Amino acid sequence: MRKLSSKRVIYNFSPRNKPAYTVADGERVVIECKDSFSGLVTNEKQLFEDLPMSRVNPATGPVMVEGLSAGGVLCVSIDRIRLGKTGVIICSPELGIIGSEVRRSRTRLVSIRGDKARFGSDMEIQVRPHPGVIGVSPAKGEFPTYYPGDYGGNMDTVEAGEGSKVYLPVFVDGAMFAMGDIHAAMGDGEVCGTGIEAPGEVAVRLSKHEGLDLERPMIETPTEWISYAAAKTLDEAAKLATHDLVRFIMSAGGMDFEDAYMLASVAADLRISQVVDPLMAAKMVISKRYL
Amino acid sequence: MRKLSSKRVIYNFSPRNKPAYTVADGERVVIECKDSFSGLVTNEKQLFEDLPMSRVNPATGPVMVEGLSAGGVLCVSIDRIRLGKTGVIICSPELGIIGSEVRRSRTRLVSIRGDKARFGSDMEIQVRPHPGVIGVSPAKGEFPTYYPGDYGGNMDTVEAGEGSKVYLPVFVDGAMFAMGDIHAAMGDGEVCGTGIEAPGEVAVRLSKHEGLDLERPMIETPTEWISYAAAKTLDEAAKLATHDLVRFIMSAGGMDFEDAYMLASVAADLRISQVVDPLMAAKMVISKRYL
Repeated sequence: MRKLSSKRVIYNFSPRNKPAYTVADGERVVIECKDSFSGLVTNEKQLFEDLPMSRVNPATGPVMVEGLSAGGVLCVSIDRIRLGKTGVIICSPELGIIGSEVRRSRTRLVSIRGDKARFGSDMEIQVRPHPGVIGVSPAKGEFPTYYPGDYGGNMDTVEAGEGSKVYLPVFVDGAMFAMGDIHAAMGDGEVCGTGIEAPGEVAVRLSKHEGLDLERPMIETPTEWISYAAAKTLDEAAKLATHDLVRFIMSAGGMDFEDAYMLASVAADLRISQVVDPLMAAKMVISKRYL
Repeated sequence: MRKLSSKRVIYNFSPRNKPAYTVADGERVVIECKDSFSGLVTNEKQLFEDLPMSRVNPATGPVMVEGLSAGGVLCVSIDRIRLGKTGVIICSPELGIIGSEVRRSRTRLVSIRGDKARFGSDMEIQVRPHPGVIGVSPAKGEFPTYYPGDYGGNMDTVEAGEGSKVYLPVFVDGAMFAMGDIHAAMGDGEVCGTGIEAPGEVAVRLSKHEGLDLERPMIETPTEWISYAAAKTLDEAAKLATHDLVRFIMSAGGMDFEDAYMLASVAADLRISQVVDPLMAAKMVISKRYL
């Protein structure tokens, strides 16, 4: 399988992005990703304030997908994620949802072995690998890769892992896909501002998808459908994610709005993707058994 | 076991509430609960606009718990929930997070058999019973039982089910506990404004708890610890729930703030309890294996 090197990265999603790589519709490739600090953190004395924001969240690409046109939908099928051996967690004053309570910056390097990451001297954290950044060129504007949006970007959504498919609305011909910011693990919220940031390789299949009409990303896991929305506040993101999932249930379940809304209320979970990127992101999850 | 009848209910949490029942510290009782519409909905032609708001969320009680003083912590151990045979789901314009999209009111009666509730003609929803209202008298003010707050109240948190313990800060001597609003099932968010609202009986043990210093409720399941906070916006509730869980991790895990914050970020989930009561509620969940 062809490997797309992390030597070609972007730090902004923009409709002016030019392709670094071109793949055929349906092609499987391995995408090599640097960690979210561009591999610059090699010891725990390097603190957040020492790191250049201009090098945060490199996303490998852009990848032009042949046959994808503006108005279509790109399916990113995540087949396999191979993690590097070391991850980074960073904490710093003013970073994250309660950053005002942080008294001093701290960097932790975390060794990753199999499906466990070691936190401190004796705690093993179950890994749940996923790329945080999964996006395409937006219709307009220029957004740093640490922003999320309707074009994906810094989605920071744990369900976008092995075996999942991420569906993205396409705004420019060729989609201009890019991926990066792998987390070995992250809790919903990513409250301190980082997960376990790790380099790695992600085997994906990039293909044109028919039959979904999307304004914003959706995720399909083996057992669930998940809407996703980013907005200035969590309240607004929650409203958009609910709207999208209810509309999806109407279509997939053959129900009118009222029944879909009631079903969502009793059987679907409105959750949080993250609360630390400049925009907040909510998601809503329904089991496939209800569709 | 003594049964506390739902003939004695409150519709407001207030420090002026007088006890309907008195139990000993550590006593087990069965609390009989009406459904959140006071049992008034008996057919699907009764719509939301026909129902009196003054009869929403009756909470059985108040129960004075002997030996509990202001400044202490009440532990509500939920041993068993027996559901009634019929549940109600209601949808109405302006009700819930996307109520502006609802075109017509609808009421659905749902039959409950074993661990399944029947939605429409052919869909079975897995039940996950929990009382929505679990609260004590606040320090001041008077709050309808459909409001959540630091005193609990309309917590609408699915994890507060069988086998869980809800810890509540106590603001008045005797706690003046009340419970109601059982849901046979509810998704995180309770987006349309109701779960599957059902009457039922909840077997609980009410006892004084030492060793937790609480500003707001916490929940313990067999496998997790969960903070809980209600506020005007979801963003503010999320911040409070994160603050509380990080402080809890510091204490339970013997860590400083920075390590607890980083652990929460990579291993705990910031989630949504509900987005439809007058205040929004967030929760944060950590597995006990990390403590």
